Parts: sequence; structure tokens; C-alpha cells
Amino acid sequence: MSTILDPKRTVAELKELRAFSGDENGAQRVAFTPMWGEVRAWLKGKLAELPVETHADAAGNLWATLRGESAQELLIGGHMDSVPNGGWLDGCLNVIAGLEVLRRLAAQYHGRPPVTVRLVDWADEEGARFGKSLFGSSACAGTLDMGEARGLKDRDGVRLPDALKTQGIDFDRVMEARRELANAAAYLELHIEQGPVLLDLDLPLGVVLGTCGVERHAITFHGQAAHSGSTPMNRRKDAFLAAAKMSPEIYRITEKHGGVCTIGSCTTKPGIVTSVVAECRITLDQRHLDPAALAAMHAEAVEASERFAAEGGVTVSWERLWHIEPIPFDGSLIELCDVAILETAGVTHRLPSGPLHDAAEVARAGVPTVMMFVQSLHGISHNKIEDTKEEHLEMCVRAFDRLADKAIGWLVAR
Amino acid sequence: MSTILDPKRTVAELKELRAFSGDENGAQRVAFTPMWGEVRAWLKGKLAELPVETHADAAGNLWATLRGESAQELLIGGHMDSVPNGGWLDGCLNVIAGLEVLRRLAAQYHGRPPVTVRLVDWADEEGARFGKSLFGSSACAGTLDMGEARGLKDRDGVRLPDALKTQGIDFDRVMEARRELANAAAYLELHIEQGPVLLDLDLPLGVVLGTCGVERHAITFHGQAAHSGSTPMNRRKDAFLAAAKMSPEIYRITEKHGGVCTIGSCTTKPGIVTSVVAECRITLDQRHLDPAALAAMHAEAVEASERFAAEGGVTVSWERLWHIEPIPFDGSLIELCDVAILETAGVTHRLPSGPLHDAAEVARAGVPTVMMFVQSLHGISHNKIEDTKEEHLEMCVRAFDRLADKAIGWLVAR
Repeated sequence: MSTILDPKRTVAELKELRAFSGDENGAQRVAFTPMWGEVRAWLKGKLAELPVETHADAAGNLWATLRGESAQELLIGGHMDSVPNGGWLDGCLNVIAGLEVLRRLAAQYHGRPPVTVRLVDWADEEGARFGKSLFGSSACAGTLDMGEARGLKDRDGVRLPDALKTQGIDFDRVMEARRELANAAAYLELHIEQGPVLLDLDLPLGVVLGTCGVERHAITFHGQAAHSGSTPMNRRKDAFLAAAKMSPEIYRITEKHGGVCTIGSCTTKPGIVTSVVAECRITLDQRHLDPAALAAMHAEAVEASERFAAEGGVTVSWERLWHIEPIPFDGSLIELCDVAILETAGVTHRLPSGPLHDAAEVARAGVPTVMMFVQSLHGISHNKIEDTKEEHLEMCVRAFDRLADKAIGWLVAR
Repeated sequence: MSTILDPKRTVAELKELRAFSGDENGAQRVAFTPMWGEVRAWLKGKLAELPVETHADAAGNLWATLRGESAQELLIGGHMDSVPNGGWLDGCLNVIAGLEVLRRLAAQYHGRPPVTVRLVDWADEEGARFGKSLFGSSACAGTLDMGEARGLKDRDGVRLPDALKTQGIDFDRVMEARRELANAAAYLELHIEQGPVLLDLDLPLGVVLGTCGVERHAITFHGQAAHSGSTPMNRRKDAFLAAAKMSPEIYRITEKHGGVCTIGSCTTKPGIVTSVVAECRITLDQRHLDPAALAAMHAEAVEASERFAAEGGVTVSWERLWHIEPIPFDGSLIELCDVAILETAGVTHRLPSGPLHDAAEVARAGVPTVMMFVQSLHGISHNKIEDTKEEHLEMCVRAFDRLADKAIGWLVAR
């Protein structure tokens, strides 16, 4: 076993994985499917060559534990599951890179590093089948909403508890996975950026400051249907007009505060060519790393919607669809990650993550956490065109390995 | 038979009609239904008391002819059919008021007025069942698109020709109805306004200048789907943003040109809360009485859509759904109608009609035509709350009767 990190092996293993778990439409590693089982078996085969103990926890997360001198645990996590027709790197890069770091540590410390190091493959990060992401990590963090999860069904009507049973997982016991974090002292996760920020800055790597808080609402404007031919413009109560004004407005709001805001859907009633729109429903997704800025963005959107409604003689109602607080990562680990990137790439950058990750659940559970992003080509994921330059893949394995070393040193020194 | 016009009888007959052909949801006189047959039988009963010849033409229009000294014909038209859950006045006011005018003329001229006067109840003005309005009048005018009409189906899949057969109408012969207009010298139609213009001006009656031309299009903006959390605002190709900017813009365009423009529907793809909108389709309905203004409104909307698309890095495509030229009414008859209203109400007003009417088909066939509007309460029709003050109903019968007299005088003098 070489004591030298081999980032080219990581790239080769990613390609090996892609060859058997993907097709012409992309990655097909949806959680709790037969292919996901094959992927897990393949991963276990790799882990079997290392001096690690391997087990699946009560929520289906796969743990590989390299016992160290201290009971303190450094966790490295990722997820092998993908969305249907997904990208080849999303999730599995973290696990395969973590595997390489584990190899290097096991060899260098002759099977016994200064702290215990554990690699975790989270179960069903994507939530592709049941529409609920971060299943395994939220069970581990103790934040899984059992009542909601119990009622989830896939498009064939199969309930989540029944699907879990076929995987040997007892739904009523999934929260027992919480015990896995008992000795967790730090959590590291490497991920493709899934956005274009590093690409636009021409940077290979970035430190993630945390995951953005999300305010997600449906906004419905209530006007009045009226004949398109006989109703003068100044007599209209046009629900679409008020809703439409929200679109440029959310761009103004984000220009002021940063973050991102998205109107993702718009529906109209009666929705016919010969009637003024009586009711228009839009969805608004707002994200920011700073809770105060997120709250301000939300408040300004509410104020704008009421102003546009008043201007148009319509009314507006808001319905919160979902909400999560921003989850900042650990300041010390952010510093260490910054240095690891700087030493590897010569330049670093700090950025928030818009999408959620398993790391957010671990951080919510109180474990000091940081993530490292590597540049995504096209700024796109969840698509077969998702890609990252091979030189950047190799570079991220080196930087992540340095981060692991620095985190171990930090834990030992505490 | 009294020689005195009795507008109160018209109101009483409208109420009689409402009582047996409506329910708690409104009027239920949909064309080619059993109730429509009952309504026709009721109308024929009224006509049987007059010295008129009655027949249905090849397209199902019901004609009552009062032969006059001259073969020149003055036509008075309306339609007994309604939309489902319709208003009590839309269409039938014209027929019942025309019946009263016919009574007065028959009595005054002892069954032989100076010109031939004909009352027509057009078949299926509303197009409620097959989605195609003005069936009977367009057959009469020779403008019915036989290929399109042959393929029309109702929501149960019944084809229009088969539905017509049950009414004793041979679809292949409907265009023979054109012969009914051979001697038509003038056409008069009274209608509720179906809009709020007269209401807002506090006027009972108005002269209709013609029916607006219509440009009806679907406009589709093509952007790019992108993750709502990871895509910076300046990287988005947001199809909804470009489409949304069209809404205030059509109000600016109509403020400049007059007329009316309506965005009646908006659909988004993928239409999910977590994605920037990749494709947004809106419908645009533009109406104006002046062909040049209509063309300018259309051109400015196209220009604006291309500008908004360019601003947002998206593309736009237009698809024409329907188009009809403005149909101006006859200048001499407009003058006569103006005077008839002025003499009756003391004040008159000229306005275009946004909605189409059977009168537009008759005018397209080259028959000098004019319409008179009576105020609609709430500015609403096609709804059970559609209503007009009784004093205005009586007033419109008096004014319409005066118009008929003036039109007869005009025809005799020509």
C-alpha cells in the first residue's frame, strides 16, 4: 500500500464507476434501487482492501472506520446516490476522494492515525425517488421529520417505509443512527460546485462558508376575470400584471442584498386567451447565507407584492412552502480549508452554497464542519453534461487530503 | 294588435324566458340542446301571432319575414343561445326587442311596411359547445371555414356535423344559407354592452362603430433551466423575467394607441420552485377598431418581446393563434343610430365593440350594418350576475324601434 496520495487513481475510479452505473443519459445511481446496491457493493470491495471496519447504520448510511489513537472522530462524507440521468461526479467524487484520503492515512500511520477517521456514504442525499433530500444525514443529525417521512410515496405509490424494508432498513429505528455522531469532532465534505461562480472567476477550488437559508413561498394574486375585448385597460383587476411586476423586482432585491431569488413557476386562472387573469400564483425561492439579509429580502418581496397588488386593485396572499435557517460552517475549519486550497492551487475563494448538502445536517447537529468546492464546467449539475476538468479533479483530491491532515492536527491540538 | 310599442312587454317576455330556460346558475340556452329547442318553440309561438312567414334556413338560423312594399329587406338580428351558466340578456334581448319592433311595424302598416322586415335568430352565436362562435351568421355570410368546422368536436367527442344532423341540419348544405342575404339592404342589432364603458360614463345607450380587429398570438420565451440555489442572478437566462416584462409593456402600448391588450395565460417549464424558468409561454390578445393602430400595437409588442429577450439572454418566438380585421359599421346607419339614441335618451356616445357579434359577419358580407349597445351593470356578461336596469331595457327598445323607423326611411329614400 503506497503512502503516497494518488489523485489519478481517484479519477480512474470515478470513470470505473461511471462505466457500470451510468448510461447514455447519465448516472443512474438512484438510492434504494438495485444499481445503488451494486454501487455500494463495489465501494465495499474497495474498502475491504483497507484496515477499516465497515457497517451500515440504522438509516442505511455506510460507515468505514479507521480506528485512531484517539476516540475523537474526523468524518469525511459524501453520497453515492444520484438523481436519474444525473452527472458522474455529484456526490460520488466526495466518497471516492475520501477513500483515497483514507488509503493515504491508513498507509502513512500504519493503520492507526492520531484520531479516528471515518468515511460515510450517506443514504439518499438526492431524495430523487421520494422527493425528500438528505434522508440519511438528517436521520443521523436527529432532524428527520418522522411524521412527514412516514407519509412519503414514490410515483408508483410505494411508501418510504416499505421501500426501506426491502433494503433491510426498519423505518421505526432510523433515528438510532444518531449514535454515529456521538464522537464526531469534525466533518469534511468535498463537492462539485454545481454552479458557475468558480468557473466565472477561473478558479479551481473554493471554501464553502455554509449553506444558505431558504425562504420558499407561493404568492397568489387575486384579481377579477373580465372579457379581453370589452374591458378597458383602466377597469382591469389583472392578477398577472401584479405577479409579473415581481420578476424584475426580485432581481432588484438581490442586487441590493446579494443571495439568490427565483420565481420558478407561474400559473394563471382561468388561463384563457380571452379573459383577464383572475388569479395568478407564482413560487418564490429566496436564499442567503446571512439570516438578516434573508429576512430583509423576504420582507422586501412581501412589501413589493402588496404595493403591486394595491397599484392594480388586486389582493395578494402568501403561503410559506418551506424554510430553513442559514447554516454557517465552522470558522476554524474554514481557515484550514482556505490554507489547504492556497497551498495546493495558489489561490483561494470563499463562497456560500445555495444548494443544501449532507454537511448542513452534520453542522446542524453541532459537529464543526466545512466543505470544499471544485469548479463545475458549464456551472451545471443534475445533468449528463455535468463535468469538471481532470486537472481540477486531481487538484481537489490533493487539497482535500491537505485539509484532512490539517483537521487532524487541529483535533489533536485541541 | 296595438300600434303602440310596448317596451314593458319586452321586459316581461325576457323574464318569462328566464323563468323556464335558466336555473340558479344562470341561463342554460346552449345551442343545439333540448332547451334551445324549447326556446325556439316558445319564440315561434310568439311569432305565430304576427303576419309573418317563418322558416329555418340551411344553417339552422330562424327567420321571420314581414313582407313589405319593397323587396329590399331590413334585417333585425340576435341570438337566443347562451353560454352555459350565462346571463339572461346576452343575445335574447336583441331577438325579443326585435319581436316587439316587428309587432309595432306589422300593426302600424297593417301587415305591409314600406320595405320587407325580417327578424333572424342566429344559430350558435356563442360557440359554447364546439368552441367556434358565430356559426349561423358566418354560414349566412359565406365566411364559415367548412374544413375547420367539419373537424370540430365537443368535449364528449361528438362532431359538429353529427350534432347538426340531430337538429335536422345537413352540414354539407349549410352554406346554402347565403341566399338569405340576397335582398338584405340593412342590418340592425341591439346588444348589451358586456363591458363597463357606458356604465362608467353613466350613459344608457351607445352607437357601435364596428367590431375591433383582433391579433391573437402565443409568445414563447426560451431560456435555460438552472438551479435556484447555485446560479448567480447575472448568469441566468430566465424565460419568466422576459415574459413578465411584457405585462406592464402591453399597458404602455394600449395607453399610446387605445384599444385593448390582454395576456390571458402564462405557463412555465419546468415550472418547479427550485429551477430558473427554461420556457415561458404567454398568450396575447390585442384588439383595435383601427387597422393601422392594431398593426402598430402588434409591431410594438413584437419589438418589445425581442428587446426583453435580448436583455435577458433568451430567445422569443411568436405563433399567430387567430386574426381578424376590424369590421367598421356603416357610416349612414351610425348617424341614424346616433340620432335615435339622442332623441330617446337625450345623450349619445360612440364606441367600438371588443367582442365580436353576428353583426360583424353580416357587415363582412357587405350589408350596411349598425349595432346599438345598452349599458351593462357590473360591466359583466357570460355570468349569472349579468344585468341591466329595467328602465334602460325599456329605453333601448324605444331607441331601437326609432332606429328601425329611420332605417326604413333611409332605405325608401335611396
